[in-house]
Amino acid sequence: MKISVLGCGRWGTFLAWYVNKVGHQVMLWGRDNSRNFQRLQETRNNDYLALPEDVELGSSLEQAVSIAEIIIISISAQELRSFLKTLNTLNVIAGKTIILCMKGLEAESGKRLSQVVGEEIGKNVNVAVWVGPGHVQDFVAGIPNCMVIGSEDVEVTKQIAQAFNSDLIRFYYGQDLIGNEIGAATKNVMGLAAGMLDGLKYSSLKGSLMARGTREISHLIRAMGGNDITIYGLSHLGDYEATLFSPHSHNRKFGQALVEGERFEKLAEGVSTVKALKELSIQYDVELPISNALYKILYDNHDAKDTLEELFLRPLKFEF
Amino acid sequence: MKISVLGCGRWGTFLAWYVNKVGHQVMLWGRDNSRNFQRLQETRNNDYLALPEDVELGSSLEQAVSIAEIIIISISAQELRSFLKTLNTLNVIAGKTIILCMKGLEAESGKRLSQVVGEEIGKNVNVAVWVGPGHVQDFVAGIPNCMVIGSEDVEVTKQIAQAFNSDLIRFYYGQDLIGNEIGAATKNVMGLAAGMLDGLKYSSLKGSLMARGTREISHLIRAMGGNDITIYGLSHLGDYEATLFSPHSHNRKFGQALVEGERFEKLAEGVSTVKALKELSIQYDVELPISNALYKILYDNHDAKDTLEELFLRPLKFEF
Repeated sequence: MKISVLGCGRWGTFLAWYVNKVGHQVMLWGRDNSRNFQRLQETRNNDYLALPEDVELGSSLEQAVSIAEIIIISISAQELRSFLKTLNTLNVIAGKTIILCMKGLEAESGKRLSQVVGEEIGKNVNVAVWVGPGHVQDFVAGIPNCMVIGSEDVEVTKQIAQAFNSDLIRFYYGQDLIGNEIGAATKNVMGLAAGMLDGLKYSSLKGSLMARGTREISHLIRAMGGNDITIYGLSHLGDYEATLFSPHSHNRKFGQALVEGERFEKLAEGVSTVKALKELSIQYDVELPISNALYKILYDNHDAKDTLEELFLRPLKFEF
Repeated sequence: MKISVLGCGRWGTFLAWYVNKVGHQVMLWGRDNSRNFQRLQETRNNDYLALPEDVELGSSLEQAVSIAEIIIISISAQELRSFLKTLNTLNVIAGKTIILCMKGLEAESGKRLSQVVGEEIGKNVNVAVWVGPGHVQDFVAGIPNCMVIGSEDVEVTKQIAQAFNSDLIRFYYGQDLIGNEIGAATKNVMGLAAGMLDGLKYSSLKGSLMARGTREISHLIRAMGGNDITIYGLSHLGDYEATLFSPHSHNRKFGQALVEGERFEKLAEGVSTVKALKELSIQYDVELPISNALYKILYDNHDAKDTLEELFLRPLKFEF
């Protein structure tokens, strides 16, 4: 199939590499003024991999979208809406399948990214998400993992999963789009919390974080109409190894740097997701103690140590 | 309160240290011929801590049980039944509260340890379990954690949790004894699997292991009459940090040593639990793919790499 990958960051570039590897014809799109794109054009390398010659690089969004049957989008979640507005004006997207390979929620509205696509593009596209664990570093080294593809249409889900399945990435069919999108986005929030615990030398509380983080997001997903066990699947719990324990995890490192008083060059996506969760907590009237504690730390300048101790070391009570 | 701790291994000795620290009068019992006990008598130290002078050491089981209101037992799970038979002959146990601080199942029968107590001692004792995450090394260094206490009688649960709660260990009340006992025992099985994945350089599959390991044991607990979300609480998922990711974890190290072809001096408790799970899988007619794969590796000499690849990298399917 003809596939275009929009976004040439670490993950987008990996996806172009991977989709080419499993036998598809791939164009990787980036902006002319993107440093990642410029470097790929000059060297066909980034810090993680070398792109084969038959992956085409392009900076025309109109061309990238019009030639492809499947459009993979991997950009910053907070830029998705304005990006889709631009994309929509090109009038080439109708009838295509869009796969969102990004983990986030719209910060101001709390909306899921597939909802943003629905609002901006409308109903004449198929929308799917491709989420779950896996480090670029591991995949490129040949270490396999399992991921999940989900959409509102099981036939679309199966078609995509079958097109992209390989010995390197084994796909499961996601059955709960709400749960998988919320799960994928919020694992970054737990990654931030894990990093803060690491920075405070409370790494052993990451066990409690796993038990209680999954639980509060499960309550939210149920309130939103999703299935309350989806959170324990690949999109969220299955991504905890990569997010809460890996030295590669951007969100974990961000949380650790924050409590250690260090500057971190790039904002972590989980920071926006914390804001979105504040909004969802109000909209759906669900208590989210961990997310709320992070909101206080990140947006209201509460002390991380005091706030997390208060959160994890509260008095006796029933577990659930 | 007067408390006796029976068993002076790493965990039992820590419990005596801890229960003394929170203000109780403690006797730590060990066998005269136990090397751990001899070392404690001679030096009042083990590799992890120094016992305060007011923790009494004793090798008379009759004395240790008769003087205490609460009896904490921390011995090898496979030795529990014969130990209880001995204890029963002393005729001093009636009316006491027994707290099991051990994570296992009877290998041959698949029975939970509280069931073994019920069969051997009968109904004239209260039985509780004290499980959840936490490394001795961390606690002794003052790093807090959350644990769970459960029994069939909520008043007993509350009484014990309140007696032992502190800034170092925050207790939750466990509501599902079946789920907490099965969860605590089977986290060692996932620890073995995690170690094998680490040894095979598949550490990133520990994400999938977490998602799918919890799921299969959840099915078992439901079939046994417990609550299917207990597995996601402190007794099991909350113990994954300590068991799947920590360099201290005995079961994880055992699994890793096994696939690396090294000898490991001491049998890990999870190995017996794998056998118990085989029995429970048949009794309750529940499929346990991960536990079953470990059974094949540990008891039928199947190749670990082939078996785990077959398990984790199977074809496309629905997630649950």
